Amino acid sequence: MKVVKFGGSSLASGKQIEKVFQIVTSDSERKIVVVSAPGKRFAGDQKVTDLLIECAERCLLKQNPLEMLAAVIQRYATIAEELNLSSEIITEIQADLEERLNGDRSKPERFIDRVKASGEDNHAKLVAAFFQEKGVEAYYVDPRVAGLVVSDEPGNAQVLPESYERLYSLRERDGLLIFPGFFGYSKEGEVFTFSRSGSDITGSILANGVKADLYENFTDVDAVYSVNPFIVKKPKEIKELTYREMRELSYAGFTVLHDEALVPAFRAGIPVQIKNTNNPSAVGTRIVNERDNTNGPVIGIASAQGFCSIYVSKYLMNREIGFGRKLLSILEEFGLSYEHTPSGIDDISIILRENQFDMEMEGEITRRIKLELHADEVKFEHGLALIMVVGEGMRHNIGTMARASKAMARAIVNIEMINQGSSEVSMMFGVKEVDEKKAVQALYEEFFFPVVTV
Amino acid sequence: MKVVKFGGSSLASGKQIEKVFQIVTSDSERKIVVVSAPGKRFAGDQKVTDLLIECAERCLLKQNPLEMLAAVIQRYATIAEELNLSSEIITEIQADLEERLNGDRSKPERFIDRVKASGEDNHAKLVAAFFQEKGVEAYYVDPRVAGLVVSDEPGNAQVLPESYERLYSLRERDGLLIFPGFFGYSKEGEVFTFSRSGSDITGSILANGVKADLYENFTDVDAVYSVNPFIVKKPKEIKELTYREMRELSYAGFTVLHDEALVPAFRAGIPVQIKNTNNPSAVGTRIVNERDNTNGPVIGIASAQGFCSIYVSKYLMNREIGFGRKLLSILEEFGLSYEHTPSGIDDISIILRENQFDMEMEGEITRRIKLELHADEVKFEHGLALIMVVGEGMRHNIGTMARASKAMARAIVNIEMINQGSSEVSMMFGVKEVDEKKAVQALYEEFFFPVVTV
Repeated sequence: MKVVKFGGSSLASGKQIEKVFQIVTSDSERKIVVVSAPGKRFAGDQKVTDLLIECAERCLLKQNPLEMLAAVIQRYATIAEELNLSSEIITEIQADLEERLNGDRSKPERFIDRVKASGEDNHAKLVAAFFQEKGVEAYYVDPRVAGLVVSDEPGNAQVLPESYERLYSLRERDGLLIFPGFFGYSKEGEVFTFSRSGSDITGSILANGVKADLYENFTDVDAVYSVNPFIVKKPKEIKELTYREMRELSYAGFTVLHDEALVPAFRAGIPVQIKNTNNPSAVGTRIVNERDNTNGPVIGIASAQGFCSIYVSKYLMNREIGFGRKLLSILEEFGLSYEHTPSGIDDISIILRENQFDMEMEGEITRRIKLELHADEVKFEHGLALIMVVGEGMRHNIGTMARASKAMARAIVNIEMINQGSSEVSMMFGVKEVDEKKAVQALYEEFFFPVVTV
Repeated sequence: MKVVKFGGSSLASGKQIEKVFQIVTSDSERKIVVVSAPGKRFAGDQKVTDLLIECAERCLLKQNPLEMLAAVIQRYATIAEELNLSSEIITEIQADLEERLNGDRSKPERFIDRVKASGEDNHAKLVAAFFQEKGVEAYYVDPRVAGLVVSDEPGNAQVLPESYERLYSLRERDGLLIFPGFFGYSKEGEVFTFSRSGSDITGSILANGVKADLYENFTDVDAVYSVNPFIVKKPKEIKELTYREMRELSYAGFTVLHDEALVPAFRAGIPVQIKNTNNPSAVGTRIVNERDNTNGPVIGIASAQGFCSIYVSKYLMNREIGFGRKLLSILEEFGLSYEHTPSGIDDISIILRENQFDMEMEGEITRRIKLELHADEVKFEHGLALIMVVGEGMRHNIGTMARASKAMARAIVNIEMINQGSSEVSMMFGVKEVDEKKAVQALYEEFFFPVVTV
């Protein structure tokens, strides 16, 4: 049994939904279909979810939402028309939307969540109607009835453990099940949405709940690439990677799939197949618990900008029990989360995401570290990029670091920071942002297209 | 003006003291001579300081100390005889020792400190007597009179800031000043000794106090070597290195000079010259604040065994503000100091010195980390060696990491850990202890004797 999830662009138009129909019905193992709200049809188009959020916000500001509402209805109506569906489904959607917009506004965040979630909920109904129209036994599934119970955190709902047991009974139901993504119901029966990539999360939860053999995630790319295609043209596609590799790559910029969305499937040991709705014959990328090493030490390279470091030096630092802990406590008091802390004997660098603080906080932090920890020097360095070189195969592969650092030396990139612990499946390099591109290109060349060097 | 310090082996016999006399009098800038207690004359010989400690401990246990006392007196008597000194000096030393041993024993640690310090104190008197006998104007200096004031911590006295100003007046005194190393006096006038390398500390304090041009530290090696001679035969001598390089090298095993002893000289910007009493024409090694880069990126390689790592992994660790701080707090509660914390996204390794804990503590730490931090995995790895590759020249030298890691790959050494922060003058590698020797040899070959590779 497979759970199949389609993203917004895969369901943005009648033509796309016909592709979805072909894909789903071509494999009898595809039992549960998770549906997103209609996404963009072309660059500059608006996602239904964004229209719904604007609609809800207008209501809260006591502005007239009718124009936005009409735009939403129009999106569904266009799709229904393209699919030759009766207008009944649109009447139903309109009634549902009006009911939501006229609902209780005393808790604005919950109101927004209810309106937002309609994008998926109504689209699932529409898709189910289409499948039925085509003569397939298919049913819209109400997450409340199915038992997808979540915490009452608007925009950040967490699935509650009892959901899995309840969802298991979906296995017994006849026909194809069309399930709206992005939201669940609290114990009190209220709608709450997941965080970003919400439909991916729903699919992952369902795959776990019904103990699927595979969770297929259809999106608009053929595969996960071994490197950012904006940095290296036509990079190698990854056929198979582990959850852990996926997560390491996601950390620094790979955005095909938000890695946390995979946790429920990961916990149940269910593989995830990334595929392209627009090119379903492409093999795609499979994310698994373990894989054979067939790619050499490195499977992918990812990078991200927007980091900075706080360098703190103090003579005899390493004799001082508690220095590191006190330093981290100060950052914690500023609400800062840090990424890494490479250290020497008398110094330590804290690597953080730059968007967390401003100049004023920077001065205040410097002051406190000097005052409270009697540091000799405190220095901020901005504009750092982190590069992750990832692969299960490098776990005990002698010489991978040599190859990586030599590649960067050839590209005349200075390595500002290296962080490599034991049991790692990745190497992390810090470089200046201006060097990011050439560093990544050099690493790609080294590990994917070996060249003869003098 | 130079402050000159001689170690125990440089003053272990009459013959050695004659060498010292030649060295001191050959340069009129050598004004203050810091003297250690007589050291070993041959392998298996006993140091006077060790005899004195045993002597004091016997007194405290109410055992007869006379035999040990006689052995101490005998050492001085033999030296006096070799130098043709009158027996008067030995009578004086004997009286001093008896007075110390008959002193107040109510505070055992202070009693031991007083007895221990006599080794340097009496030897300074003997050396001064010999210089006078040779017709040189030389005076024993009493640290109390000179104003070397220290904190009242037995075996770990810290110099008090007012000492420096008081010691400055030594500049005005006539003749050569023979100053006993290893101890000072508290404000209450009691003797307290420094920690290990105590005479080095005295020399460093005096150099600062009198604002010397140079602090010469005579020992029994020609120079600081670029690598441990037990690992690489006849390694290159280092002509000049910075304090910081010295400290980085000391951290992992270079023991010619205990780096903390240099702090007072370092603070005053006074260079330190390491020289060999037995080969004074050898240039030796100069330790300075800044140096010209003449050695390529690397100046030295040091390594030390006896480290272990605690590997902690937890899915989504990097989202959790305070995780690292809480982890370090637990270790702090066990009184553990840690060295480094290389980290990945979902894991962190804590590198610690292995001698800090036993199996029981290991189990307890594992239990607490799992319980309090809900870690997925906690794992100890023993038998790690740290290798430091040090050099001011690698600060912005592109390709040094590539050369180092390639050298280790050639030697088929797996790198367990790399820790390199910004503004570093060193690279740190963690390897298994069994790989230490071949890793260091490979690094030495790479940076000191470049070989052509295919």
